Amino acid sequence: MVEPTGQWTVDACDALTGPHFSDHPDYLFRPYLGPAHLNAVEQVAAWMGEAGLTTRIDGAGNLIGRYGDGSKTLIIGSHIDSVRDAGNYDGPLGIMLGIAVYAALKAADRTPPFAIEIYAFGDEEGSRFPAPMLCSRAVAGSLTLGGLEVVDAQGMGLAQALEMNGLSMARFLDARRDPAELLGYVEAHIEQGPVLEAEGLALGVVTAIAAQIRYAARVTGVAGHAGTNAMALRKDALAGAAEMILAIERIAGAGGGAGKAADLVGTVGRITAGPGAPNVVPGEVAFTIDLRAGTTEVLHPAEAGVVDALHTIAARRGLTLHLDKTHALPPSPCDENLRAKLRRAVEAAGVAPRDIVSGAGHDAMIFSPITPSAMLFIRCKDGISHNPLESVDPADADLALKALLTLIDQLEADYE
Amino acid sequence: MVEPTGQWTVDACDALTGPHFSDHPDYLFRPYLGPAHLNAVEQVAAWMGEAGLTTRIDGAGNLIGRYGDGSKTLIIGSHIDSVRDAGNYDGPLGIMLGIAVYAALKAADRTPPFAIEIYAFGDEEGSRFPAPMLCSRAVAGSLTLGGLEVVDAQGMGLAQALEMNGLSMARFLDARRDPAELLGYVEAHIEQGPVLEAEGLALGVVTAIAAQIRYAARVTGVAGHAGTNAMALRKDALAGAAEMILAIERIAGAGGGAGKAADLVGTVGRITAGPGAPNVVPGEVAFTIDLRAGTTEVLHPAEAGVVDALHTIAARRGLTLHLDKTHALPPSPCDENLRAKLRRAVEAAGVAPRDIVSGAGHDAMIFSPITPSAMLFIRCKDGISHNPLESVDPADADLALKALLTLIDQLEADYE
Repeated sequence: MVEPTGQWTVDACDALTGPHFSDHPDYLFRPYLGPAHLNAVEQVAAWMGEAGLTTRIDGAGNLIGRYGDGSKTLIIGSHIDSVRDAGNYDGPLGIMLGIAVYAALKAADRTPPFAIEIYAFGDEEGSRFPAPMLCSRAVAGSLTLGGLEVVDAQGMGLAQALEMNGLSMARFLDARRDPAELLGYVEAHIEQGPVLEAEGLALGVVTAIAAQIRYAARVTGVAGHAGTNAMALRKDALAGAAEMILAIERIAGAGGGAGKAADLVGTVGRITAGPGAPNVVPGEVAFTIDLRAGTTEVLHPAEAGVVDALHTIAARRGLTLHLDKTHALPPSPCDENLRAKLRRAVEAAGVAPRDIVSGAGHDAMIFSPITPSAMLFIRCKDGISHNPLESVDPADADLALKALLTLIDQLEADYE
Repeated sequence: MVEPTGQWTVDACDALTGPHFSDHPDYLFRPYLGPAHLNAVEQVAAWMGEAGLTTRIDGAGNLIGRYGDGSKTLIIGSHIDSVRDAGNYDGPLGIMLGIAVYAALKAADRTPPFAIEIYAFGDEEGSRFPAPMLCSRAVAGSLTLGGLEVVDAQGMGLAQALEMNGLSMARFLDARRDPAELLGYVEAHIEQGPVLEAEGLALGVVTAIAAQIRYAARVTGVAGHAGTNAMALRKDALAGAAEMILAIERIAGAGGGAGKAADLVGTVGRITAGPGAPNVVPGEVAFTIDLRAGTTEVLHPAEAGVVDALHTIAARRGLTLHLDKTHALPPSPCDENLRAKLRRAVEAAGVAPRDIVSGAGHDAMIFSPITPSAMLFIRCKDGISHNPLESVDPADADLALKALLTLIDQLEADYE
């Protein structure tokens, strides 16, 4: 029975697990258009129907529950797919909160002057096809048929997977919504990080999905015998890389400023050292650099600082440094007006409104170019996500529900 | 034609290459008891015979050229096997210098009061069987039959390989020499490091084969999303490991003291970071530590300093550090008296006598427990070894030959 409570939203996410809702027997794995996805859509559609929403499936396989009418539609969206060995809340919680919002409105016998549509996107994680956010991109109209020529790890193309689910490539792009008909896009999602918990806050208001820059770094020194090469005469690529890793950590840790502005992060996640024997001084090291910040004003000086520091270290040590920029994603700022409303709504729920940058990508970034978009973050235990240990306090979900309802109040008040 | 010159020794090493003397078509690879080894033994035996030495093969497949007589025997030894993709001089040069020493003595019509035996050891590198210095250990009597139960990468046991070369397991240990019959052991070898070249010296007098300690280090932090984990809240195992690598470099670089005492080396040669994705903060890093010094007086405080520094770094960063000591080899000091003679001989050759620790292992370390042993290092270009770029100046080999001849003068003068 759908209830307008945080407890129900958490319970519903927990119910969406087990063999019926996972394509792996040992852990939660719900890739796009797999059997578990179909079962989850069926279950969520049942909850939506039970609550009184009118449901439909669009051309991309997104499940939509609609309430009310009006020339404009507010989308409350999140994704129903999961990564491999996932937690229960990354994605589904935002859908359940949407359903709970509707249940609360219905219980209060309220019908906003605009339509509300709860979207359960079929794919956000890209855990089946190497093209994340395929389904929200279809809705936002930022896909072409060329972008659909993707194949999963078993060699099955999207076209065949769609057909096995009663869908078709020909209708995929029909999922597109006309931006003129949209009032905005709101997404509630677990933070997937430890910041809110560290500050004792249940909720956070996302200012932007972070801008992101990635480099592949290659440091070349001179390999040599670990016993015969005097320290002063070495050109140790790994010792040089170690100094570079610490420089990245230092710049990222300092460059974002203190407190709320500290949204700059820098990560070296992958490293290899060759030749890789315990008794050989490494001559070649490759590592990745991932830099993110909410604004390019923060990110670009940090990037310049890192590039400069790394070249300085390489030069001092007589190493050769090759930096290859492999990825650059601009920031996706949330809509200022909608965000201000969400801040007030969070405050009204009794939570100090905390601006927070989303370091991870979300469907909201797909919508922000076409309609005012905002994101509400919900505290998760120990900041853990993409892991079965993912945990959300129902009381926090309840505060999120309150904030979303207050946001709808404000949208209604401002609606012309 | 064997000549008592450095040029001949270098030329002879260069002649010991090509398809006939290598078991790989593209590079030099002469493992123990392979066809190339057999061919090389045949060629070196021919040179020895041509020069006038009496040759024999012992039970372990070592080639020995003997000159003179007397109750005592001075061994001039080195190895004829090679690593994969080897240079020409690591090993063979010491054998050729032994032959050249004999040629010079013969040319001068000199017969020392002790016998001289030039040993071409069949295996030092352990590049076929996982048991380096098998052949010198057989001669030194530090092997048991149990130590011979080794199998090569193709699954062939030592017993079969011996039989294919007309040898047998039963006779392997007959290679042992009675220490009472030995006057001493002298080995000339390329430095395999850059120290002599950096100091403009052709020769170095080895004080000891370094003591060596190895650790496997494992650093555990908390893996997390590279975008959502604020810098201040991370427990990044790789950033911690980077700080540890720099601490090892700093301690090794400073701990050995200045100038001649700076024989301490510390190396992190292998590192892995997990989970190893560009967008995930590493939660687990494993790396190796290799520490070496000529004396335990230098090595042990450095080891304690490294262990202490690493634990301090781990504690400060909230990381878990596990250190597993995988290897500890005591130093093999060269004989003081023989080394003093070699110093004077080097000086007489016009080279400032430079004490140097051998960070790499050599056959000399097998002999030092049973007979006075000394090692002469010869400068090699850019410190490069275990590489086809290995290069030795014939003029340096000539100085080495002069020093070895003077050493024999001194041994003769002191001989009772």
